[in-house]
Amino acid sequence: MEIKVVRRVLDVNEKMADQNRKMFAEKGVFVLNVMSSPGAGKSTTLEKTLSILKPDINCAVIVGDICTTNDADRLAKTGAPVVQVNTDEFGGDCHLAAHVIEKAAEGLDLDETELLIVENVGNLVCPAEFDIGEDARAVVLSVTEGEDKPVKYPLMFRVCDVALLNKIDLLPYLSFDIEKARSYILQVHPGMPIFDVSAQTGEGLELWIGWLKEVVKKKLG
Amino acid sequence: MEIKVVRRVLDVNEKMADQNRKMFAEKGVFVLNVMSSPGAGKSTTLEKTLSILKPDINCAVIVGDICTTNDADRLAKTGAPVVQVNTDEFGGDCHLAAHVIEKAAEGLDLDETELLIVENVGNLVCPAEFDIGEDARAVVLSVTEGEDKPVKYPLMFRVCDVALLNKIDLLPYLSFDIEKARSYILQVHPGMPIFDVSAQTGEGLELWIGWLKEVVKKKLG
Repeated sequence: MEIKVVRRVLDVNEKMADQNRKMFAEKGVFVLNVMSSPGAGKSTTLEKTLSILKPDINCAVIVGDICTTNDADRLAKTGAPVVQVNTDEFGGDCHLAAHVIEKAAEGLDLDETELLIVENVGNLVCPAEFDIGEDARAVVLSVTEGEDKPVKYPLMFRVCDVALLNKIDLLPYLSFDIEKARSYILQVHPGMPIFDVSAQTGEGLELWIGWLKEVVKKKLG
Repeated sequence: MEIKVVRRVLDVNEKMADQNRKMFAEKGVFVLNVMSSPGAGKSTTLEKTLSILKPDINCAVIVGDICTTNDADRLAKTGAPVVQVNTDEFGGDCHLAAHVIEKAAEGLDLDETELLIVENVGNLVCPAEFDIGEDARAVVLSVTEGEDKPVKYPLMFRVCDVALLNKIDLLPYLSFDIEKARSYILQVHPGMPIFDVSAQTGEGLELWIGWLKEVVKKKLG
């Protein structure tokens, strides 16, 4: 019974996501949905990414959190317009749903936006099930989380288009086997592009941002 | 509408949790529900905890994961009986619900069990909403996740009885402010007991295990 209920919620979400996708296409906006566990480094990665992208691409951000505006405050410092969604106003939701994105996008000038980055709620499970009308999905996995997360949370890695292995500056202090992590990712999502990065030190970000610019360019021309 | 649906699911869960609680009380079993983000170190903490508790307390474990039996395999090596729940059989659930625990407990000899540890699905959001009929709840926060998780995911820290700050062996390599983390925890849950531990090195585990023995003894006498 519970499953049926969830299915119905997902059907409604799917329709709203299609509407969002149409709206974003009309406005010439590329939407990137960024997901991860809590504390994997989404905000730091996006801070750095926005700073580097800024001269070339007009960015805006929607940040999802259950509570607080901590991440939005950090990202606003990059100069990009930021809308914070606190899901406790939507029943404490563990993910951003399509109707929430539609509402949040009303607070942005989409005519002036080329790339809209959505920082989802920190959760490696539920956000994977909710299409928000995005063009691409990125998952950030911190190397402090262990190698086996891709096989333990396969849906997330299956639905995403690109994976960032973050916090590689900590590798010398961990027993994390990065080759094993990569092979687990490729096991659940063959051919997935994987970028090793440290949002803290900036290492590896250029390759990731090169990939992102490429996919945005492919859509917007 | 979505919220109402969730409420109904939670009402049903609450009744099942009460039944579980009654059953566990009759069998003289103390139930500890352990929750965290993915990769915060629940399994390593429990491996060490089980090894240390073993001579004194008969333990059993229920492990929740969406996929894989990795954690169950690790915990079974401690000699404790382990039941793995893969929630993909229950619709890929992002949490363990009370009816799932009831079913999993059928696979254990509760007459021979004093402490049943439930390692929940790695998720700092949803499991906080689902009472499983436990006596105590522990949240594990890895210091690699950043200080602000307690204020960003307050429900989890509010419903738990004890917090473990794990991976403190990595503190020299992080800009994590442990006093700030503690004050955030106490802000959402005044008086919460907090233990600084490294499941990897074993540092700090004695105090946590002392606390656990105390609460188990208080119930079982």
